[in-house]
Order: sequence, then structure tokens, then C-alpha cells
Amino acid sequence: MPSERLQKQIDFIVEIDKMKKIFRQNVVIGTNRNENDAEHSWHLAVMAMLLLEYAESKNLDNLKVIKMILIHDLVEIDAGDTFCYDEKGYEDKEERERKAAQRIFSILPPDQGREILELWQEFEELKTPEARFAASLDRLQPLILNYHTQGHTWQRPGVNKEKVYKRNEILQKGAPELWKYVEEIVEDSIKKGYLKD
Amino acid sequence: MPSERLQKQIDFIVEIDKMKKIFRQNVVIGTNRNENDAEHSWHLAVMAMLLLEYAESKNLDNLKVIKMILIHDLVEIDAGDTFCYDEKGYEDKEERERKAAQRIFSILPPDQGREILELWQEFEELKTPEARFAASLDRLQPLILNYHTQGHTWQRPGVNKEKVYKRNEILQKGAPELWKYVEEIVEDSIKKGYLKD
Repeated sequence: MPSERLQKQIDFIVEIDKMKKIFRQNVVIGTNRNENDAEHSWHLAVMAMLLLEYAESKNLDNLKVIKMILIHDLVEIDAGDTFCYDEKGYEDKEERERKAAQRIFSILPPDQGREILELWQEFEELKTPEARFAASLDRLQPLILNYHTQGHTWQRPGVNKEKVYKRNEILQKGAPELWKYVEEIVEDSIKKGYLKD
Repeated sequence: MPSERLQKQIDFIVEIDKMKKIFRQNVVIGTNRNENDAEHSWHLAVMAMLLLEYAESKNLDNLKVIKMILIHDLVEIDAGDTFCYDEKGYEDKEERERKAAQRIFSILPPDQGREILELWQEFEELKTPEARFAASLDRLQPLILNYHTQGHTWQRPGVNKEKVYKRNEILQKGAPELWKYVEEIVEDSIKKGYLKD
């Protein structure tokens, strides 16, 4: 029999397999298939390796950024994906996600459950350069996917340039050079008809 | 226009979206849907955060392990997934993957292309504790999935206990305590009829 500690760790590893069944609004490039949270989190983590030089500070803890990214959407196993332009969904998002964190992270041994909870809270609060950089990538990745899928998600009613800029504004602080790239993508997307002005 | 450097980085980020379309032999727990390389890499990376205490050495570089894991399967974008019990597929696996690495990693700016190539080579060569730990998790994760899907992949002709042990033997060195867990899972899987003796 594995130790109680290892069993808890394995139980958690099995639980989070569910991330592969939590679908997001974006589609995978070249398909009609929605991206899931596991794929999204992996994509972001690789971006965190490669784009670190664009973060607001040169002394960022890259390991912490990547850990934050790897776990930032785990709460969606219970709380589901809330579409970022769904104002109604956002009303109770915090409460749903808080409850989810409580259940899911407590599957782990207490010290690790606490570590993951703290990483997730830091990500949500956006008070550290690591959290702001992680959040910047979390905005940039769907923007890149939208740009390469003819504005898939941006075609929804009510989505326009103003809302996309608002959604991405964290990049102004979290990754200023990438914010310039966001502006270029948004303007080009309007020209191409992927996004409403 | 983004700088040449940023454009290369973005091109790479778009290229590796294809990992979401490279399917492995395992299925996602509770489904008939094959797991893809992006999901697999994410799952491993979280495991590397949580199971580090079981590595052969206490002084492992966790960031390096996670980076290795995040990029270890990128070559499959060109080379495809080779079933680990497919002896014929393994004959030209090295050559196919070497060519893939050359093409895919050279999309990046040269310094980052070299970094990823070195990480991938280190992973493949199994000469460092980081590589052996990463490879141990790369064996353990499908084993856990098989155990929770009634031995899905183990039902294939020619797969038996001996081959599964052989496939997982890196854990003896890379994560000795997890090797004991592998033995328990394998023996229990035989009892349950998930794996042939």
C-alpha cells in the first residue's frame, strides 16, 4: 500500500485529469474543436518559458510563474469555464471558484494543498509581478488563438474592440512590450473583419 | 510590427498549438477519447510539482524538470506518437525525432532554439537526475491512466506484465519510492484483469 501522503497525491493527480474535459470558448487552430483547460494551461506554461524577457521586472521567479499557470484553472473542474465577456457569469464566479478551491486542493496533503491555494490566490489577486505576468499570458494566449481562427470567439454578440482591450489591459503593466503586440493584433483583426470596431 | 525576435517567438507559439492534435494511446479517464500531447505534458508538469520529494536526489532543479516536461513531446508534431510497445515504430523513432527537433526548434530565435534543443537532448539521454525524474513521470502518468481505465492500452495484443515493468524500469533509479507504487499498481492490475501476467 502506498503511504497516506502518496495516496493523497495520486488521488489529486487522478482528480485533475478532469481538466481535459473542461472546455473553453476558443477552438484549437485549424479545427472546430474547443480547447480544454489542460491544453490551455500547457500552452501558457510554454509561453511563460519563452516570453519571460517581456515581463515588467527582470527578477521574476520563473518557476513560480509556471506553477501558478499550471494550477490557475483547476477550480474550473467544479466551477466551470466562465466566458470572459459573460457579465452574468461573472456575478457569482468568485464564490463558485472559492468553493471549488476548497474541495479540490484539500484532496492533497495539507502542506501541498496550502501551497497550491496560495499560488492560486496570488494569481487571482494580481498584486505581484509574477501574478501579473501569468495573467498577461492568460489574456494573450486566447488572443493569439482568436487571431488565427478568424476571430472565432470575437464573433459572439456583444464582443467588440473596446471589450477586448479592457480584457487585455493587464498587459500594460504585466508585460508592456506584449501590450504593443496586442494593439497591433487587435487593429489588424478589425481590418480583417475578425473583430467589431 | 513586432520585433523579429518576438515574431519568431509568436510563430513558435502558434506552431506548437498542433500538440493539441497529436493523439496518444491512452484515453482520458471516463471517456473513449484519446489523450493528446498538450494535455499529457500539462498533467506531467503538475506531477513534477507535487512528486518532487520522490526524486533520486534532494537537490533537483524543479524548474529544469518542468521545462523539460513541457517541451519533451514537441518533436511529435512532425514525428507523431510512437506507441511504446511498437517495436517496429521504434526502429526509426530517433531519426524521425531528430529531424523534427531541427525543424521545430529552429522556428525560435537561435538562443531559445538551442535552449529547447539542449533540454530535449538532456531528457532523451537520461544522464541527469532531472532527466531521469522527468522520464519517470512520463512512464508513471500513462500507468495511472491505464489503471483508471481498466487497462485500456494494456489490452492490446502483445502487452503483458513483463513489458510494462520493462517500460517503467527507469523509475527504479529516477524515483525509487514511486517504483514501489508501480509494482503495487501492476500487481493489482493483473488481479483485476487489466493486464496479462
